[in-house]
Amino acid sequence: MRSVRLHMGFTDATPGSVLIEMGGTKVLCTAAVEEKRPPWITGRDHGWVTAEYAMLPGSSDRRIRRDHYQKGRALEISRLIGRSLRSVVNMKTMGECAIRVDCDVIQADGGTRTAAITGGWIAMTEALRWAAEQGIASRSAVFDQVAAVSVGLVDGEVLLDLDYADDSSADVDMNVVMSGRGLLVEVQGSAEGALFDRTDLDVMLDLAHQGISELLSAQRQAVDFPVS
Amino acid sequence: MRSVRLHMGFTDATPGSVLIEMGGTKVLCTAAVEEKRPPWITGRDHGWVTAEYAMLPGSSDRRIRRDHYQKGRALEISRLIGRSLRSVVNMKTMGECAIRVDCDVIQADGGTRTAAITGGWIAMTEALRWAAEQGIASRSAVFDQVAAVSVGLVDGEVLLDLDYADDSSADVDMNVVMSGRGLLVEVQGSAEGALFDRTDLDVMLDLAHQGISELLSAQRQAVDFPVS
Amino acid sequence: MRSVRLHMGFTDATPGSVLIEMGGTKVLCTAAVEEKRPPWITGRDHGWVTAEYAMLPGSSDRRIRRDHYQKGRALEISRLIGRSLRSVVNMKTMGECAIRVDCDVIQADGGTRTAAITGGWIAMTEALRWAAEQGIASRSAVFDQVAAVSVGLVDGEVLLDLDYADDSSADVDMNVVMSGRGLLVEVQGSAEGALFDRTDLDVMLDLAHQGISELLSAQRQAVDFPVS
Amino acid sequence: MRSVRLHMGFTDATPGSVLIEMGGTKVLCTAAVEEKRPPWITGRDHGWVTAEYAMLPGSSDRRIRRDHYQKGRALEISRLIGRSLRSVVNMKTMGECAIRVDCDVIQADGGTRTAAITGGWIAMTEALRWAAEQGIASRSAVFDQVAAVSVGLVDGEVLLDLDYADDSSADVDMNVVMSGRGLLVEVQGSAEGALFDRTDLDVMLDLAHQGISELLSAQRQAVDFPVS
Amino acid sequence: MRSVRLHMGFTDATPGSVLIEMGGTKVLCTAAVEEKRPPWITGRDHGWVTAEYAMLPGSSDRRIRRDHYQKGRALEISRLIGRSLRSVVNMKTMGECAIRVDCDVIQADGGTRTAAITGGWIAMTEALRWAAEQGIASRSAVFDQVAAVSVGLVDGEVLLDLDYADDSSADVDMNVVMSGRGLLVEVQGSAEGALFDRTDLDVMLDLAHQGISELLSAQRQAVDFPVS
Amino acid sequence: MRSVRLHMGFTDATPGSVLIEMGGTKVLCTAAVEEKRPPWITGRDHGWVTAEYAMLPGSSDRRIRRDHYQKGRALEISRLIGRSLRSVVNMKTMGECAIRVDCDVIQADGGTRTAAITGGWIAMTEALRWAAEQGIASRSAVFDQVAAVSVGLVDGEVLLDLDYADDSSADVDMNVVMSGRGLLVEVQGSAEGALFDRTDLDVMLDLAHQGISELLSAQRQAVDFPVS
Repeated sequence: MRSVRLHMGFTDATPGSVLIEMGGTKVLCTAAVEEKRPPWITGRDHGWVTAEYAMLPGSSDRRIRRDHYQKGRALEISRLIGRSLRSVVNMKTMGECAIRVDCDVIQADGGTRTAAITGGWIAMTEALRWAAEQGIASRSAVFDQVAAVSVGLVDGEVLLDLDYADDSSADVDMNVVMSGRGLLVEVQGSAEGALFDRTDLDVMLDLAHQGISELLSAQRQAVDFPVS
Repeated sequence: MRSVRLHMGFTDATPGSVLIEMGGTKVLCTAAVEEKRPPWITGRDHGWVTAEYAMLPGSSDRRIRRDHYQKGRALEISRLIGRSLRSVVNMKTMGECAIRVDCDVIQADGGTRTAAITGGWIAMTEALRWAAEQGIASRSAVFDQVAAVSVGLVDGEVLLDLDYADDSSADVDMNVVMSGRGLLVEVQGSAEGALFDRTDLDVMLDLAHQGISELLSAQRQAVDFPVS
Repeated sequence: MRSVRLHMGFTDATPGSVLIEMGGTKVLCTAAVEEKRPPWITGRDHGWVTAEYAMLPGSSDRRIRRDHYQKGRALEISRLIGRSLRSVVNMKTMGECAIRVDCDVIQADGGTRTAAITGGWIAMTEALRWAAEQGIASRSAVFDQVAAVSVGLVDGEVLLDLDYADDSSADVDMNVVMSGRGLLVEVQGSAEGALFDRTDLDVMLDLAHQGISELLSAQRQAVDFPVS
Repeated sequence: MRSVRLHMGFTDATPGSVLIEMGGTKVLCTAAVEEKRPPWITGRDHGWVTAEYAMLPGSSDRRIRRDHYQKGRALEISRLIGRSLRSVVNMKTMGECAIRVDCDVIQADGGTRTAAITGGWIAMTEALRWAAEQGIASRSAVFDQVAAVSVGLVDGEVLLDLDYADDSSADVDMNVVMSGRGLLVEVQGSAEGALFDRTDLDVMLDLAHQGISELLSAQRQAVDFPVS
Repeated sequence: MRSVRLHMGFTDATPGSVLIEMGGTKVLCTAAVEEKRPPWITGRDHGWVTAEYAMLPGSSDRRIRRDHYQKGRALEISRLIGRSLRSVVNMKTMGECAIRVDCDVIQADGGTRTAAITGGWIAMTEALRWAAEQGIASRSAVFDQVAAVSVGLVDGEVLLDLDYADDSSADVDMNVVMSGRGLLVEVQGSAEGALFDRTDLDVMLDLAHQGISELLSAQRQAVDFPVS
Repeated sequence: MRSVRLHMGFTDATPGSVLIEMGGTKVLCTAAVEEKRPPWITGRDHGWVTAEYAMLPGSSDRRIRRDHYQKGRALEISRLIGRSLRSVVNMKTMGECAIRVDCDVIQADGGTRTAAITGGWIAMTEALRWAAEQGIASRSAVFDQVAAVSVGLVDGEVLLDLDYADDSSADVDMNVVMSGRGLLVEVQGSAEGALFDRTDLDVMLDLAHQGISELLSAQRQAVDFPVS
C-alpha cells in the first residue's frame, strides 16, 4: 500500500478540513455544518450527513470538465461516500443539523474514492466535534471509524491500493469499505476484463482488511478517536 | 425466489424485446442496433453495448419524476447494467455497430435493476442475432449468459430476491451478477442498517448463486443458448 | 379504424391504469391522485387534472431520446391531453387533490396522442373513482366522456385512424377530440403537403365522429359510465 | 377586427424586418438568411424555413420569464409559425439556404401567434427577395401568401381577433391560418370553457375567412406580391 | 457622439418604458414593479432594483442565440446595469417592492450596454414614480441620475461612443458610468489590442465626461428630474 | 499588501501548476496544453489561451454551490482572467495549440480573482515552456508579465489588497491588471457604497501600481523571466 499522509486543517473556512494523500493521489476533504436539514427529516435531534465528490479540471492529464460532477460516475461516488459515512453515525440523535462533506480531488492517481472516504471520515468527525463545542450536535454521534481501500486483480495477481496505471490494466476492481470494528460497510467488485470466482474474492477481501487496518490507525493518530 | 415470467417480443419496433416479470416487478427491455458507435471506438469490427435504465412515472406509488433518469441512482444502475452485459460480449469482434439496451420499469416491486440485467441479456442477445442475420454483426460475440439477483439481510435472516417491503427494512442489500459459468461479474453489497461480516457475505453469495441458476435456466428456455 | 383493445389494471401502483392498443400502437395510461395541487389553486374543493406524454426509447424504430419529453412536440401533446381531460371534469367541485395522468407510449404506430386521450380518460376516471372511495374527491366530477381519433387526407382520400405509414404520406393530418355528447373539444388540422378546403374539413370531421363513437362505446364497456 | 399597422424595415440587421401591430399587440418579425441548413437536408437546392417565437419580459403586465421560450406554449407556437410559413414555400427548389424567422412579442394584447404568422410571412418574403438578389435563393419559391387570425366564442357570441380581455373569457379559442387562395393551412380550435358544435365551427371559420382577407390585402400592399 | 433619441412609453404593459436610440443602436428598456423582493431582504421599507439585458436574435447580422442571455457576456452586462442603477437609489427607504428593469436590444450597433444604463435609469424612474402614485414606494428614493457611454482608443485616437465598426478595431474599450453630480459609478477599461497608460486613461475619462453630460441632459428633458 | 507565497508544481498532472497564497486566500492555478483550438481559429500557428475560475464548495464559510461557476460572477471572472493572460501572449505565432488555465479557489479571503491572474500567468508560462520543449509551441509567445491586485476605498481610506472583511465594507472596489512594463491591461472600478471622483481613482491606481510591482518581482523569482 502506498504511504498515507494527512494534512490536518489544510483550509480553515470549514470546521473539518484535511488533505489526504495516498501516493500521488491528493484529495481535499472539507466538512461544513449546516442548520438546514433535508426536507424529509422531521425528528427533533435527527441530523444528516451528505457528501459530494468532484475532480478538479487539472487533477488528471486528461482534462476533467467542470460539469462532470453531475455525471454518472461522480454521482455514484458521491452516493458511496455519503452511505459509508452515515453507516458509522447515529443520525437520529446527532442533533438538528447536517454535515456536508466535500471531497475535491486535487490530483488523481487511482483510489480517489477510497481516499475520499478515509479522509471524509476525518473531516466529518472534526466538524461534529466543533458542532458539539457549539452546542449544536452531539459528538458521540460518530460511534465508529470508517475507511476504505481499493484492491484488484492485475494479470492474475492480487494488488492492494491500485494506482492509475494498475487500475487501467486491472481485470477486477474492488472497493472495500470497512468499519473500525472490522465489519463490512460496502463491497463493490466489478469484473473489467476477466470474471472472478469466490476464491479471488476471498483473497481480495483479506488483503483489503490489512490495508484498511493501517488507514484506521492513521485516522486515530490524526483525530484522537478511541480504538473500537 | 419469486416466479419469473418472460414475455418475448412484447414490442416489435426493436429487434430485441422482452417484458420480464419477477413477482410484482415488471421491466420492459428492448435492444436496438445502431450503426453509430461511441466516438472513441476506432477498430474495424469493434462494437459496443450500452444500457439505459429508467422507471415510468406511474411504476411506483410514490410518483417518479420524468427527469429522474439523469439522477445519481438511475445513472448508477444504467452503468451497472451496461458493465454486466459487456462482460459476456466480445466487443472487439462483434462487428461495427452498437447495441443499445433500454430497460424501462413498468412496475416496481423490488429488484428492478437485477431484473433489468436478466432481461437485458435476452434483449441484447436477440438484437445481436438479428444483426447477425443482417450481416452487420457476429452472433457468436455473446460468449456467455449473465443474470442477476438481489439478496439481503432482513432481521438477521438472509433473504433471496427482495421485494419492495423486504428491501425497505433490509439491514444489508446486495446485488450479485453472475455469468452462465458461475463466475462473478459484479458484487455490490451495502450496509443500510447494520454492518455485516464475512460469514454473512458468504451465506448471501451462496443463496444468490442458487437464485441465479434458475434465472440462467429461464433465459436458455427463452432464447435457445447452449449451456456454458 | 383499427381495432381497440383495453387492458384494464395493467399495472397496480396507481389507482388508474390501462394499456390501450389501437392496431400496433400501445400506450400505457396511469393516473395517480396527489394531495398537492398547483400553487395557483386556492379554492377549497378545487382540484386539478394534468397529463404528461412521453415515448419509450424503444417504442419506435428510430430511437427516441429520453429527454424528448421536454421538447416541443411532446410538450404540445401533453398540453393537448391535459386540456382534453379537463374539458369533461368539474374541477371546482372535484375535491382538494390533483389527478396526474401519465401516458407512456410503449409502441408507436401512429395515433399515439389520440390513443393517449382515449386511454387517459379511462385512467383518470378510475383514479377519481378510487379517490371518491377514499373520501378525497367527488366521483361525479367527471361529467362526460372524452375520446379522440386522427383523420387525414392521403392521396386525395380521407382516412380514419392513420397508422405510421399513412401518417408519413398524409397531405393533411387532423386530430379530433370529442365528448360523449358529440361536442367538439379540440380540432387540430394541419396541412403537411397540400392545403385543404372547407369541404375536406367537413368530410374529415364526419369520419372522425364515426370513429370516436366506437371509442366512446369501448370506454363505457371498460369503466361502466352512463351514456350521456 | 382591430386595425393592422405594418412598419416595414423596423430594424436593418436582417434582410427581412417588420413590426406588425394588431390593436395593442406588437410583434417584431425579422428574417435572416443562413447558409447552414438543418443536417437532415441533403438535396442541392433544398432550403428550409424555421421560426422562433418569444415574448419580451416586459411585453405583458404579468412578467414573462426569459426562459419561457423553451416551455411548451412558446415551442408550440414556434412550431405552428414554422409549419404555416413552410406551407407556401417550395423548399425543394428555394436554394441552398435556410430562412430563420424570429417573432418577438414587444407588447401582448391577444393574437400574438396569429400576428406573428402574418408578419412572419412578410419578413420571410423580404428575406427571400434579398437572397434572390444575392443569387443564393430563388424568389419564386414563395408561391402564395399566408396569414392568420384568431376567432372565438365569448358568452355565446362569435368574435374576430380577440384581444387579451376577450381571450381570457372565451369559451372557445380558435386560430385559423389561411393561404392567399383561401385554402386552410391550420385550424386549431380548443374548448376552454364550454364545448362547441359543428355549427359554431362553421360560423367561426366564416368570420376568420373575412378577417384574413383583410390581412392578405395589407400584406400585398406592404411587399408587392401578385394576387393569387 | 451619435445623436440620442428617446421614445417614451414605447410600450404600455409596464409602468416604465422607453426605446432609446444611439445612432443605429436601439434598446427597449421596460421597468416593472414587483411585490416580491429577493429572499435575503427583510427590512420593512427595503426595496431592490434588478436588471436583465438580452439581445433579440435578429438584432445583429450574426444571429444571436436565444439562450445567450445565460452566457458570461450578457450576465456580466446585466450585473453592470443593476449595480449602476442601484448606485443612485436609496434602497433602504424606497418601499417594500422590487423594480425589475429589462433591457432588450432591438438593434445592435455598438454601445448597447451603455445605452441600456442610460435608458434603464429612465424606465426605473418612471416605474418608481408610478409606484409612488400607487402608494407602494417613495419617489424620492431615486436621489440622482446615472448615465453611461463607451470610449475607446482606435488607431491611437480617442473616440467617444463607439459604433460596432469602431468597437471591432479598438485597442482599448472603456465603459464609463457617471452620476448626475459627475461622480464615477463604474469604470471598466480593457486592453483589446494594445495596452494603455495613465495618460490614455485620463483623456478617455475626460471625453466620457463630456458625452455623459449630454445624456444626463437628455434624460432630464424626458423625465423632469431636478438638476443635481 | 499581504505576503505572497508561491508553491510551484503543487500538482503534477498538468505542465503548469502553482498554488498562490495572498494572506488567507489560496488559489490553485493549473495550465494544460490542448491540441484542440477553438473552432473559429484557422491560422496555422495561431494558438489560444483560455481560463476558468471556480471556488471549491468549502473555500468559504458560506457554502459555495458546485454549479456556481456557471453563474454571472464566476463567468465574469473567468473572462477577466482570460483577457488578462491573452494580453501578454502573441497568439498568432504561439503555435497550433490552446493553453487552458484553471483557477480553483481552495480558500477565499478576498482578492481571489487578482490572485488567479497573478498565479495564472505563472501556470501559463510554465505550460508554454513545456510545450516549447515538446516542439508544439513557441516559448517566446509570452512577451510580457501580467499581474493584478485589488484596491479600494474603505471609510474614506485607500487600501491595497483587500481581504474579505475589508472588501465587505468597501465603498469602492477596484481591480487593476498591469503588465510587466507598467501598462494598464484592465481597470475595473465599482462604487459599492459611495461614488468616487477622479482624485480617488488616481490615488487608487498609484497604490495598485506599487502592489503589482511586488507581485511582478515574485513572479520573476518563480519562473525566471527577464525584466521587461
